Amino acid sequence: MSEHNSPQHMRRLIRVARGAERPDLVLVNCRLLNVFTGTIEEGNVAIAAGHIAGVSPDYAGPDTIDCQGLLVTPGLIDAHVHIESSLCTPRHFSQIVAARGVTTVMADPHEIANVSGIDGIRYMHTCSQGLDLDVKLMAPSCVPASHLETSGADLDAEDLQDLHAAGLVWGLAEMMNYPGVIFEDPKCLSILQAFGDTRVDGHAPHLGGLELNAYLTTGIGSDHECTNPVEAAEKLAKGMYILIREGTITRDLDALLPLVTDRTMRRFCFCTDDRIPADLLTEGSVDYLIRRARAHGMALEDAFCMATLNPAEWFGLSDRGAIAPGRRADLVVWDEANDLSPVWVLSAGRVVLQPGTERDPRPIPAVVMPTSVAQSLHGQWETVNFDVAASGSQATVRVIGSIENQIVTEHRQCSLPVLNGRVQTNPTADILKIAVIERHGHNGSMTTAFISGFGLQRGALAGSIAHDHHNLVVIGADDASMHTAVRAVANMGGGIAICHGDAVLAQMPLPVAGLMSEAPLLEVHAQYRTLQQASTDLGGRLHDPLMSLSFMGLEVVPSLKITDQGLVDVDAFDFVSVVV
Amino acid sequence: MSEHNSPQHMRRLIRVARGAERPDLVLVNCRLLNVFTGTIEEGNVAIAAGHIAGVSPDYAGPDTIDCQGLLVTPGLIDAHVHIESSLCTPRHFSQIVAARGVTTVMADPHEIANVSGIDGIRYMHTCSQGLDLDVKLMAPSCVPASHLETSGADLDAEDLQDLHAAGLVWGLAEMMNYPGVIFEDPKCLSILQAFGDTRVDGHAPHLGGLELNAYLTTGIGSDHECTNPVEAAEKLAKGMYILIREGTITRDLDALLPLVTDRTMRRFCFCTDDRIPADLLTEGSVDYLIRRARAHGMALEDAFCMATLNPAEWFGLSDRGAIAPGRRADLVVWDEANDLSPVWVLSAGRVVLQPGTERDPRPIPAVVMPTSVAQSLHGQWETVNFDVAASGSQATVRVIGSIENQIVTEHRQCSLPVLNGRVQTNPTADILKIAVIERHGHNGSMTTAFISGFGLQRGALAGSIAHDHHNLVVIGADDASMHTAVRAVANMGGGIAICHGDAVLAQMPLPVAGLMSEAPLLEVHAQYRTLQQASTDLGGRLHDPLMSLSFMGLEVVPSLKITDQGLVDVDAFDFVSVVV
Repeated sequence: MSEHNSPQHMRRLIRVARGAERPDLVLVNCRLLNVFTGTIEEGNVAIAAGHIAGVSPDYAGPDTIDCQGLLVTPGLIDAHVHIESSLCTPRHFSQIVAARGVTTVMADPHEIANVSGIDGIRYMHTCSQGLDLDVKLMAPSCVPASHLETSGADLDAEDLQDLHAAGLVWGLAEMMNYPGVIFEDPKCLSILQAFGDTRVDGHAPHLGGLELNAYLTTGIGSDHECTNPVEAAEKLAKGMYILIREGTITRDLDALLPLVTDRTMRRFCFCTDDRIPADLLTEGSVDYLIRRARAHGMALEDAFCMATLNPAEWFGLSDRGAIAPGRRADLVVWDEANDLSPVWVLSAGRVVLQPGTERDPRPIPAVVMPTSVAQSLHGQWETVNFDVAASGSQATVRVIGSIENQIVTEHRQCSLPVLNGRVQTNPTADILKIAVIERHGHNGSMTTAFISGFGLQRGALAGSIAHDHHNLVVIGADDASMHTAVRAVANMGGGIAICHGDAVLAQMPLPVAGLMSEAPLLEVHAQYRTLQQASTDLGGRLHDPLMSLSFMGLEVVPSLKITDQGLVDVDAFDFVSVVV
Repeated sequence: MSEHNSPQHMRRLIRVARGAERPDLVLVNCRLLNVFTGTIEEGNVAIAAGHIAGVSPDYAGPDTIDCQGLLVTPGLIDAHVHIESSLCTPRHFSQIVAARGVTTVMADPHEIANVSGIDGIRYMHTCSQGLDLDVKLMAPSCVPASHLETSGADLDAEDLQDLHAAGLVWGLAEMMNYPGVIFEDPKCLSILQAFGDTRVDGHAPHLGGLELNAYLTTGIGSDHECTNPVEAAEKLAKGMYILIREGTITRDLDALLPLVTDRTMRRFCFCTDDRIPADLLTEGSVDYLIRRARAHGMALEDAFCMATLNPAEWFGLSDRGAIAPGRRADLVVWDEANDLSPVWVLSAGRVVLQPGTERDPRPIPAVVMPTSVAQSLHGQWETVNFDVAASGSQATVRVIGSIENQIVTEHRQCSLPVLNGRVQTNPTADILKIAVIERHGHNGSMTTAFISGFGLQRGALAGSIAHDHHNLVVIGADDASMHTAVRAVANMGGGIAICHGDAVLAQMPLPVAGLMSEAPLLEVHAQYRTLQQASTDLGGRLHDPLMSLSFMGLEVVPSLKITDQGLVDVDAFDFVSVVV
């Protein structure tokens, strides 16, 4: 509230509200959505000092926006998002989603925290100043995600508390380590205690019954992992806010919307969690969830309430989420006739989208990356060895079975030929090698195993995005291509590369912690498509091999995954051998 | 959250919730109101460490309460109350309202703050520890209420901020000085700025339009002064929580209930504001509002939601307001067949009401009153002079016209005889004298004027409760009786006295800041009735002359009022002469 709370701003806003001074800007000819009453009102919206002075026919210009009778709503709030998943920095992410009517995001900088620790979070905070939307960071609760991997950082309660004391985080982001909570892991509990006075987001897929009760006793108040109405109904009844998610992979709205009734609506919000550039560009952000809810027949006022007032209430952001005196002037003018698309967007009273003219992005000072963000790839890349040793002429190996559009995998086994004591791939049968190589400069650990589902007939793809540790992950039909791909990623200081033999076929640099590009989102999207095409050209079968690649190392999602420390049987939550 | 937040309590609660340890107590055979879904559930409620571990059929004793199929709800929350109006200390207030199912009150110690300042607020905080209900103090925002009176204290932003920093107050209590806010009074604005990160209650009777907008730009978020649905509808639409009030005098529920719809219900709470002992004993507290709402046909789940989840949300008390894991074990078992009366009440897991047996109050250490609370009457009582000078044989004077059961007065004039240069009362025509004498030891100021409506044919009544400055106020038919009454109040160190000539007919000591008794509420109630009867015996016509007496000095409520500084024309908000 610092800006709002200055005596000068408070006085100015009071004077404008009572009619003693002219507003900075007035929206006229509005049909205003009142989220408190669920009704449409007429009136002019007076704006001063970045806030709404009030709604009244008495407010007048000189500076006005004629809304021409269009619907005006509060700016949208994304209740949970990882900006890193856009592959863009907050600056470029902001330009895209603000134009969609999103004016606040509750962002969990979990990915960069796993690479660059506190430095990474501070960098994201610095990058988030002066943007077209308000980025509220939540403290990443689970860095590293588990003890079965090597992350770039290990954040404890004290680290996170320091962030909170410094005003850099609003609350605690998704507590993913639900077994840790339920079985009293000291680190989990000390983090929860440190954030006891803030909002704490949950993450508890399929958790129910007494274990869910145990999880909730710690003050965790929301969940965005519900995928079916039975699960969501239990969580709702036990007091969790349900954040309905439409990410790139995870699409929960259709399943959960039937739970939203007049009675329960107040307990639901919308979020995007992880969206790749293509989805942000074609579908949108939270605006997409509103359109989809409307297509299901949900009333306009309810759909918008779930994207405005409700998340404002859950997060205790009493300064936004409604068109009312004293709230931030986050406002969106919608063209309902044109598939509910934004025409004007105001963020804290500043126009960030307007009809007709391309708006120059607000000039913001360049942010210097700290070393841990700018130089995040550390390894002896030339000496990497993808050998998998076995005796005899055939070996039975465990194989990660990747599945189209899912982040869960199957735990398969198959028999592979052994030559000179080394297990061979079998591209014809879609059995490739996968390796994860520690890249944070801690221990240089690596694991090589086998994977099916990608379908490459030749070549390799490698990347520095591998949830959640973000070590270097590479999949390939042959060792030479894998070496080339690893070197390409290393040479870019992070990124994604597709190679064959000695040739780099396509690549996208991600110099920001090996996770994000410095290019605008449109450009990143084009690079992404080039990479997808290159994979297809190599015989790749997955719709989005880059996304799938990045989830093969996530050992907290079933069934068989791989980290730098070894092959992980997620159900047993322990390592297993590659060769059976 | 200090108690809940200790690692030991957190671990214990987790273990009980997941079934690894036995609960401290289990409620069985319950019909549980789920305020999130608005439905009635079955299940056993497990309690440990003062909190709810969870609801499940799997939880078992050894210690159980058999609810015999009765309705179980969360403990009630009174969203705005002045404990001082009960004439009892928090301890005795607590015993009465907790037995009514109220387990949390948002208390504004405005009255004692006007007498004893910060000392008084700290005293109330100390008195509120270890009670049968949780008293959350809100910082009194308007001490003194105006510049037209002499209060015992003057609290500025720094004083109040210190209280907040010390954890003694939860937020800012009713900002009554709405003209001050609208016209940028520096003290008002600095107080609002100091509490910008907390919840700020409003108080803005009849305010609307641009002035209401101006008031709300400062972050004020609730109002409990709405008396008609038009006013409340505007405030609701502008984002205020509407706290529906049923005080002793102010009764707003019937008028406001029609505004509560499926859509708007979440924005309404219940409060009592000011209730005298008789009403607490006969009608009750927030439980009375629930019964009354039910009598109007409101659904059970809505009526309870407005007294539980809604105030918890408005005040950001995410640790209560629902029967859900991790929330305080504030629980009420109701007998619906017996006019919805509480059978069991648990406060933070402790039984504070149970059937059949009278429960001994929890032993709490005696609280030593600070000097400013224990010795709050300062004056030269023997030299008080009630003369009103005038020349001639008749004088036209302004007369305060008191009205049955209202705190507004009429601004009347009448002609009175003058003897020896002094204006005389006329008890036969119901024209008595009224005087307010400064009692805080600051300046000894006093004013004497005339009043009608009380009807005393002889004698006088005096008291040390006079909103909001709480100077000594006395009304009488003759000067001698007035002197006796003033001396009686002074001799008690504060209280109310009814006298005739030299005789004290009835009196009630209020040694705690001249506002509260140290006796239990039942005893205070008996004393109150004796005083009422004594007034009636003197010819008094008002149903509650003590209440009326205490509001004749409140110069922020129309029309003609009196303070130690002079007779106040409230509409002009300035002093006027007694003799015209």
